Order: sequence, then C-alpha cells, then structure tokens
Amino acid sequence: MASKKSKTAATSSILVIDVGGNNVKVALGHHTEPVRVPSGKDMTAAQMVAGVKAATKGWAFDRVSLGFPGPVKDGKPAREPVNLSTGWVALDYEKAFGVPVRIVNDAALQALGNYDATSRGRMLFMGLGTGLGTTLVGDTFVQPLELAHLPYRKDKSYEDFVGERGLERLGKKKWTEHVFAVVALLRDAMQVDEVVLGGGQTKRLEELPPGVRRGRDDAAIVGGVELWSR
Amino acid sequence: MASKKSKTAATSSILVIDVGGNNVKVALGHHTEPVRVPSGKDMTAAQMVAGVKAATKGWAFDRVSLGFPGPVKDGKPAREPVNLSTGWVALDYEKAFGVPVRIVNDAALQALGNYDATSRGRMLFMGLGTGLGTTLVGDTFVQPLELAHLPYRKDKSYEDFVGERGLERLGKKKWTEHVFAVVALLRDAMQVDEVVLGGGQTKRLEELPPGVRRGRDDAAIVGGVELWSR
Repeated sequence: MASKKSKTAATSSILVIDVGGNNVKVALGHHTEPVRVPSGKDMTAAQMVAGVKAATKGWAFDRVSLGFPGPVKDGKPAREPVNLSTGWVALDYEKAFGVPVRIVNDAALQALGNYDATSRGRMLFMGLGTGLGTTLVGDTFVQPLELAHLPYRKDKSYEDFVGERGLERLGKKKWTEHVFAVVALLRDAMQVDEVVLGGGQTKRLEELPPGVRRGRDDAAIVGGVELWSR
Repeated sequence: MASKKSKTAATSSILVIDVGGNNVKVALGHHTEPVRVPSGKDMTAAQMVAGVKAATKGWAFDRVSLGFPGPVKDGKPAREPVNLSTGWVALDYEKAFGVPVRIVNDAALQALGNYDATSRGRMLFMGLGTGLGTTLVGDTFVQPLELAHLPYRKDKSYEDFVGERGLERLGKKKWTEHVFAVVALLRDAMQVDEVVLGGGQTKRLEELPPGVRRGRDDAAIVGGVELWSR
C-alpha cells in the first residue's frame, strides 16, 4: 500500500464508477471507453462490487471515484438508493476495492465534470431528465441542490414544468419556453457566471438559452478524475 | 510595506468597514466597539475614505475588510450602490487605505460572521430586513444568492411574504407562519446543514423554526476578520 500511495497521481490510475438505475458505467480515467455493468432494482452494493471487479479484471487503479444515485453525507451514501437494492449505506467501499474511495452524488459528479476550472467562476448545472437535477459548482466546492420542487407557478414546481412530465403535458414548444424561463430565473437566483444544461432531455432542445452551454457526454468520467484534484 | 507584510497576522490588525445606507461601521477586529460614521445617499466613496480615516486616527491596522452594499465581482464593487452616491466602482481601495483590502457584499460578510467553522457544514444565511437577503456559506466559499425574487405563491415572491411589506400586509401571526414555511422550503432546496436568521426583522419573531439559530449582532465584524483566514 505504501508504494501505491507514493506513486505520482497519474489520472489513469483512477477508476470511475458511475452508478445508475439501469447500468453501472466504469472507466479508467479518460483512457478507456466506459464499460457497462447492468444494474436494476435488485442490485445490492455487494453485487455492484463483484460486477465492477469482474468487468475491470486486469485494470490497474489506485483510487476510486464513485457517483452514487442518492444523497451523500460526509463522503458516504446517506440512505439506500430508490432504484437499486440495499447494502449501499453499510458497505465499506475502501475495504471492498482495496484502495481509497471518494463518493459523491451522481449528479454532482456530472456537474463537476462540466465545470470549466480555468474560469474559476460559479456554475449552475441543470440536469433535464425524468426530473430536474441541480448542482452549484465553484472553484473550491460542489454543492448538490434540490431546486426541482420549489414552487414555480400555479402551485406546480420547476420539475412539473421542465421535467419529463412537463414535456408530455405542455408539448415541445411550451416546454422549451419554460426551460428558457427557468434557466433565466435560476441563473439570477443563484448568482452564477454560467449555466450548463445536461441530462437526457437536453437533446430535445433545438436551441439553447443565450450564454448557456450543453454538458459533455463523458461528464461523469471527467468529474470522477477531477474529484481527486480537489 | 515589506515589513508590514512579514508581520504575523494578528486579528487586531484588521480594520473592518461595514458600509451601510445610514452608517458606516468601523472596528478594529473584535477588539473595539464599532465606531459609526454617518453615511447617506450623498456619500461618495472618497468621503467614506476620509470619514473612516478621521474616525480611526491613530489606529494601527495592516489589512482592511470592506462590506459593500451591492454586488461585488472579482473583489470589486460591480456597480454604484443604490443608497449612496458615486465613485465606489472606480476607487482604488488599496491605494486609498495604503494596505491590502478585501471587499465582499455586506450580506455575505454578515453571513460569513455567522458561520460555525468548527462544523465544516453548509449554512444558509437569511437576512430578514426590508427585503430578504440570502447567502450560502461552506467551509471554503461564500456564495451570495438572490432567492428573494423567486416565485413563492400567488404570483408573489419570497420577499413579498417574508420581507417588511409582507409583515405589514399579513400581520405578525401570518408573517411568522410564512417565515417558518420559507425557511423549510429553502433549507431543503439548498441542502444545507443549518439555517441562520439575521437582519432587523428577526427580532419580530417570538420563536424560531426548529433547528434554526439567530445571527449574532457583531456578525459583520466577525466576518471581516474571518475573511482574512480563508
């Protein structure tokens, strides 16, 4: 272990594990295409470890970054995930992988991977998926937020309008207008220099609000590497 | 100048200047009672400097922390203040005081002074005054927010309900209920460990929401000292 710790921190030695409800994506820093391990509501934490180990046989890594689909408190999952099975709170991740492990919320990992560190500014990441994920990122911090359920209009929340249900109810044109309006509101409220839009529904937007950029596809992997530079 | 820089950073050597619309409060760290220099809508930045220098004659300080009543960008006032006169954006503060100067938004300074650094958690500061000021503070950052004007209910904003106009319109009982409701909403949305309530209207609350504490009276001064430990 001592020799591992004394190694120069080459980014290739970070195993990034992005735990999702359908797949666990695994990559060795930026250097490999992510490998997918099927997950689902029956997957326990121990099964994830076994699946990841089988998929990465022969890979050399000395640190792990793990994106967890739920709240993370003091570097550990705070409760069992909604879309997976159990064992996630109790698992000793460092023991399981035999190396130091950093765990953050999966949306926070994606947000971090979209941060432009050269700007040193403040960024709001908005993930448009089934719901609305929000994370604030600065030079020295990553702050997961839960803005989705705040009131927006007519007793409905931001998520009710810009999430998947909003798109179905409103149609693409009206939905797009609300995405633009919500981006403007939240950019102002959070006093950020930049807004980045990610998540699966972002591709339904034909145009982006002014000054907003699209998140990168490999954001979780980039974020997992970046996590060890902070 | 070189000899000044090499001094140990004793907190007593920080002059804290809290610029307000009625008074400029000045204190030498925690060690003196704040002195008040009357301000008002005719006060230019140059007059503030002259007033502060006259009020602090003979005080020894080698750094200045300044709380500015308006947005601050890259350590400088971003526009002229609403309740004072001009010259605030253009002034060379370090030249004027002859020592290094750090400038932050005045609400952010107060928020910072209420942060419990031993907790290392995330805190939302809510200042109940004429309006509603909000700032997010963590171990490594201070993020001024503008949550006041987000929609809350019936096409009105948070500030419309919990600010001074809300108190006048709703009466104390209803206003208190909305303060409790807004604290709960924003605590959840911002995913913080703690909420601190400050500002002049806070004394109108007979009880505080569960788990919320009152801000300290000398928060701006404490924040000004803390600003140099970060």
